[in-house]
Amino acid sequence: MVGEPLPSVRVAGEGAAAVKKEGALMVYRKWVDAPRGLPPGSLVVIEDRRGELLGCGLYDTVGPVALRLVELGSCSFSSAEEAVYALIEAAYKVRQRIGYAGDPEAGYRLVHSDGDMMPGLIVDVYADLAVYQSSSIVWDVHGETVARALAEITGVRHVYEKSLQRTRRDIGLPPREGLRIGNKTRTIIREGEARFIVDARIGQKTGFFLDQRLNRLDFGRLAEGTVLDLFSYTGGFGIQALLNGAERAVFVEEDEKAVKLLRSNLELNRVADRAEIVQSNVWSFLASATNKGESYNAISVDPPAFIPHPGAYRKGVQAYTRLYALSARIGSNDSLLALSSCSTHLNREDFMRVVARALAWSGRSYRPLGSVRGMPPDHPVRPSSPHLEYLKSIFIVLD
Amino acid sequence: MVGEPLPSVRVAGEGAAAVKKEGALMVYRKWVDAPRGLPPGSLVVIEDRRGELLGCGLYDTVGPVALRLVELGSCSFSSAEEAVYALIEAAYKVRQRIGYAGDPEAGYRLVHSDGDMMPGLIVDVYADLAVYQSSSIVWDVHGETVARALAEITGVRHVYEKSLQRTRRDIGLPPREGLRIGNKTRTIIREGEARFIVDARIGQKTGFFLDQRLNRLDFGRLAEGTVLDLFSYTGGFGIQALLNGAERAVFVEEDEKAVKLLRSNLELNRVADRAEIVQSNVWSFLASATNKGESYNAISVDPPAFIPHPGAYRKGVQAYTRLYALSARIGSNDSLLALSSCSTHLNREDFMRVVARALAWSGRSYRPLGSVRGMPPDHPVRPSSPHLEYLKSIFIVLD
Repeated sequence: MVGEPLPSVRVAGEGAAAVKKEGALMVYRKWVDAPRGLPPGSLVVIEDRRGELLGCGLYDTVGPVALRLVELGSCSFSSAEEAVYALIEAAYKVRQRIGYAGDPEAGYRLVHSDGDMMPGLIVDVYADLAVYQSSSIVWDVHGETVARALAEITGVRHVYEKSLQRTRRDIGLPPREGLRIGNKTRTIIREGEARFIVDARIGQKTGFFLDQRLNRLDFGRLAEGTVLDLFSYTGGFGIQALLNGAERAVFVEEDEKAVKLLRSNLELNRVADRAEIVQSNVWSFLASATNKGESYNAISVDPPAFIPHPGAYRKGVQAYTRLYALSARIGSNDSLLALSSCSTHLNREDFMRVVARALAWSGRSYRPLGSVRGMPPDHPVRPSSPHLEYLKSIFIVLD
Repeated sequence: MVGEPLPSVRVAGEGAAAVKKEGALMVYRKWVDAPRGLPPGSLVVIEDRRGELLGCGLYDTVGPVALRLVELGSCSFSSAEEAVYALIEAAYKVRQRIGYAGDPEAGYRLVHSDGDMMPGLIVDVYADLAVYQSSSIVWDVHGETVARALAEITGVRHVYEKSLQRTRRDIGLPPREGLRIGNKTRTIIREGEARFIVDARIGQKTGFFLDQRLNRLDFGRLAEGTVLDLFSYTGGFGIQALLNGAERAVFVEEDEKAVKLLRSNLELNRVADRAEIVQSNVWSFLASATNKGESYNAISVDPPAFIPHPGAYRKGVQAYTRLYALSARIGSNDSLLALSSCSTHLNREDFMRVVARALAWSGRSYRPLGSVRGMPPDHPVRPSSPHLEYLKSIFIVLD
């Protein structure tokens, strides 16, 4: 059966230019002229004012973005369902190519929004469980298709939606959460020699921070002696270190649920006897460690976003500077320092400036290992969507 | 014997603030008040106007920089020679820690200027040969000590100086080149499964581009089918691909001396039968390939710096955009594209914009693998010296 022709939507001026010249995948409502009553999630052909084809997109009715492009320069899809399947398939192929998908115990990001031509959708795969997060009514509408495609293409048996993020609230979308397929919200993934429990229900974001995978593995390889894992969450950095030659690790985490999972992860990896959990605010811990003159041979500093919105910039920069400086002060000679920030609003240059200031303030001499590390291969950042690049980390050896 | 006390140099205002607050390692002459007749290369104690200790540095008499700091916050060295040995030793320890040094056939950057607290000095180690580049009279004066320290600490038997870069000329320093220790200027390094001939005398920079090591290895792992290595120089990208499953590789290089080494590298790696060398200007090659409708499954695009000085920015950006777009056009479906720029004057954001524009212009849909890649671990970029971050690369899969 040949389907109906797709509705077409015209994009004006700068909106069209951004798509054509930069490959932008989101078009603001002010540039868009759509047929009246077009339902949210409709697959549409996108043209500029003169009728030149710009691509295919999904029509959005909530918030400032009116079009989310899923194809550029041509429009080969005949239905939204077809597009969803094709896009998830393409995303999966790339993850296979880079070696992240395939292993049934693997954890990897399968869909990274614009980076995978699905602006507004995030999907993380944890072994047999996929967790997705929609930032748009477009993906709310197609949630069932997304869930089915995930199960069919990746082989997961359970699909959970966790769309609770602030950006939804900001544009007036309600939170959404629940099992869409299957019956499990908790599973175990493998990362190098380590295994981690992932619980979509209780965790931050989709349940686990896959973006730090390479940093955890490198930290594990480089860390020796006594390790400090600040904002440890469920223990990723410290456990990699314990499995790779570190003698002892101290985990500092405030959240009770995270501590519970951390404890289970330590047992799962048989390193509980070399671990100490401090359920505490990191600032109090640092004050006390400094007072007691403690020192550590390797420190991971991976705080939550201190700059959740642009208005928090100044305060956030102060917090990062102070945190990195205090951490550097309790590093032993030759100690490894892994400093991270996941604040989108702290760009890479600002991050470098913060690190430079913090280290100067700490009075410690140091040598960086390489430059600032960015997003891993399963978190593709489309050059036209630099806002997807939120994670910055730097590895430093203190003198 | 206790040495003479070090001469002391005062640094004023913003110069001192930059050292104290950001950890800056270079101080411009206008902030510096030094004893009259102080010889270039003198190790000095650096203080601010009120006598607060800022660190140790080497006194520079040529060009706008008057002080190059080699220690921050304290001054523990008693002679320049002691400082050179200690700094090279520390740099070497970091390279051992990250696994780059140790193997007698390894090629790695040992000293990356400010990144190793030796602002203005670059040292690359190629198996038994070290090549250094001085950008300052400071390191010219201490060249003999540098050479001896390199031999003693790393075990190389040959040390070659190659200080021919433009920045020397700009500040009025003459070019310097020659064997400082030993008698070899040519050697062989191993990189993954590949071996490469390095010839310090005829090559670009210090003879080989160690900065692309990780990109070459990743390109090799991901490339399949027919590979195109543009600006191939001595063949790094294509040879890694041929050793990792690619069927055939076409190398495009204009320079006769590079082509000669490339030919030897192909034979050394026993892949000459699957390689084709096109000794040509890359632009002509691309025009011809486009005309003939050729297509490639993996393409490395690693041109020389198109923006050698800020005045060339506009023209350089056009050249990059055109080059990346033309390369994308001859990529087959699912082909891998590795795009690089080593222009310091094209920052990371600009690079992303260039890539976005080039791909939009090419009319190709694509998926990036991760984000823009920066400098590798043996090229440390001190956050206070972001100018050391010149290399940007992005890996893309074309639809």
